[in-house]
Amino acid sequence: MTFFRSRWVDPPPGVQELDAAELAPGFRAGGVACGLRGDGATDLALLACDADHVASAMVLTSNAAAGAPVRVCRERCDLTSLAGAVVNSGNANAATGEVGYHDALAMRDAAAAALDLEPPRVAIAQTGVIGFPLDLDAVRNGITAAAGRLSPRGAGELADAILTTDRGRKACTVRADGVTISAQAKGAGMMQPNFATLLCFVQTDGRVDDPQAELRPGVADSFERITVDGQQSTNDAVLLQASGAAERPLPAGLLDAVLLQLALEVVADGEGASRIARVEAREAADEAEAEAVARAIANSPLVKASLYGRDPNWGRIAQATGMALAGEDLGELGGDAIDASGLGSGEPEADIVIRLGRGDASAQVYFSDLTPDYVKLNSEYTT
Amino acid sequence: MTFFRSRWVDPPPGVQELDAAELAPGFRAGGVACGLRGDGATDLALLACDADHVASAMVLTSNAAAGAPVRVCRERCDLTSLAGAVVNSGNANAATGEVGYHDALAMRDAAAAALDLEPPRVAIAQTGVIGFPLDLDAVRNGITAAAGRLSPRGAGELADAILTTDRGRKACTVRADGVTISAQAKGAGMMQPNFATLLCFVQTDGRVDDPQAELRPGVADSFERITVDGQQSTNDAVLLQASGAAERPLPAGLLDAVLLQLALEVVADGEGASRIARVEAREAADEAEAEAVARAIANSPLVKASLYGRDPNWGRIAQATGMALAGEDLGELGGDAIDASGLGSGEPEADIVIRLGRGDASAQVYFSDLTPDYVKLNSEYTT
Repeated sequence: MTFFRSRWVDPPPGVQELDAAELAPGFRAGGVACGLRGDGATDLALLACDADHVASAMVLTSNAAAGAPVRVCRERCDLTSLAGAVVNSGNANAATGEVGYHDALAMRDAAAAALDLEPPRVAIAQTGVIGFPLDLDAVRNGITAAAGRLSPRGAGELADAILTTDRGRKACTVRADGVTISAQAKGAGMMQPNFATLLCFVQTDGRVDDPQAELRPGVADSFERITVDGQQSTNDAVLLQASGAAERPLPAGLLDAVLLQLALEVVADGEGASRIARVEAREAADEAEAEAVARAIANSPLVKASLYGRDPNWGRIAQATGMALAGEDLGELGGDAIDASGLGSGEPEADIVIRLGRGDASAQVYFSDLTPDYVKLNSEYTT
Repeated sequence: MTFFRSRWVDPPPGVQELDAAELAPGFRAGGVACGLRGDGATDLALLACDADHVASAMVLTSNAAAGAPVRVCRERCDLTSLAGAVVNSGNANAATGEVGYHDALAMRDAAAAALDLEPPRVAIAQTGVIGFPLDLDAVRNGITAAAGRLSPRGAGELADAILTTDRGRKACTVRADGVTISAQAKGAGMMQPNFATLLCFVQTDGRVDDPQAELRPGVADSFERITVDGQQSTNDAVLLQASGAAERPLPAGLLDAVLLQLALEVVADGEGASRIARVEAREAADEAEAEAVARAIANSPLVKASLYGRDPNWGRIAQATGMALAGEDLGELGGDAIDASGLGSGEPEADIVIRLGRGDASAQVYFSDLTPDYVKLNSEYTT
């Protein structure tokens, strides 16, 4: 198992790992360098499903300053039957006003024409610098070129086209019970020169009757349970497409395992990160309370610095917990309610547990450490 | 003016700055090194007002894991008539369970005996490491010694006794319209080896009929509007005592100016801080929205890193704003609504303004930058 390598992920039994360049049957992709990134790297890709009927779902950022591609998806796409997608890195097309919106729409329409699909059946996702106008000529040329490269083995090009300052490609192709899932993601750590975005594309030949019902809880337990620096992007998007060609349902737990492993790779690749941790808040009064406590601990720069410094500092965990529950009284919360030994360990995946003694709800959040490199990466002069 | 030096603070006209070692008339203080700090520095002090009737108010942390001294003040003191106080650094006596509570009570009672006051009229405040038992013998000896040093010029010893890793003493004595205010504070930046606390003591000979009504809004606009790392301490406490001996009310704006200048010194002395900024969210739908946006920007590690790196990165301000208003739609929020030029300036006090175009409420928050030193200070192994 080279993909499913975290001890926090439980893939279903009998799962096979295939070449991550291979898309799930029925899907094709192609990527090119069209010049949006300054370094000549692959920065634009097309993705298409050949099936007549595609069941899809898309989870988009709730950030109130959502970027143009997110707004186009929300307002101009049929998110339940997306057959194709166009994506670029190098420019997030966020905070670009009306012009940016029209550029995103034009890009989406150009992709739909190249893929021979109705425009509402094509999604758009963008990542990179914000506040800069999109080079639409480069995008159009890129779309034409990428359409000529569409291939069932194009997942690698798609995975490459979405990277920004990620340290490496994040992708997998896995099979169980005769159903294949391929997926490509990029990191969420906010980045120089502006900030980056979480993107994830998932393709399957499984039969998915209610894609939203499959995707939403999986995202809630994975990408929505990670934090690098507590910042939410303007452009986050996760797309699930199912062709149904395998004529079998998704194996139980496979999609969740794929999403969680990819989410953990995103955390591990957070800016400057050297270690990751899972914090579990147990015995909370209800789930909202458990989540609030786990998030407060995961986002505490003090706890994150302790994770970096291998300091089993349970006092910082007590303090963050008390802050999450401000106005309440935790009374005798002492060191015996907190297992912070994972902070002090040398393990790349550290466990932290806090028992609140207030009920039986629990929640988990995954986070990266705060390192001098994070500050260095984010403080360099850029504009 | 050496105390009122921030351009964001407006002291009333005609204010005089006196020697900060001098307490407001009618107050005495004394401090000693009793051994709670390993370095032999002053670490325990007593404060007393000689007036028969003292009007007081105390603002305490809302952290649900409040330390023992906070719990003793809440449960065992008459916060409206506090004549005396005992304070130590070196040990916060937080997360110390029942034993810690009884130690805090014993310390408070010993101070009351030394000051010849009823115990409920004596406040206690503690700061330093958490989760360690208090050396009550050292404390008792310190109280006896400090009682022998009580002096009208003891404000410096009191100011010294509360410092932890602060870079210097934070205190003032100011006079206007025949009324004197003296005040001593310590920093809120979370610190090695565990975390520190905001403490502030304010004495005046002014007549204050409703101390809570004077103190609460002043704290809300100062200490509650600053952030070093978004973390709330278990031990924060602000105490106002008024003897009324001057037989005049507080000059309008003087207490607020003292609290804000001290709060800004706390921010400027935040861990590793090299610059501070004020972010003002304008044109919000209501005050809660304005405050949420200003806090999200002030707590964003990306914005804080930009402040350090002198990067006028307005995209990060747009992103933090959108996160604060998640689920809403800011539509065309572009660079023209955001003045981030202060981030790029070389000034020690930078201004940031965002106009939301949603109403006429506004709010301000003050914050420090995120520097490599912050990470270094907080990641060293300590337990």
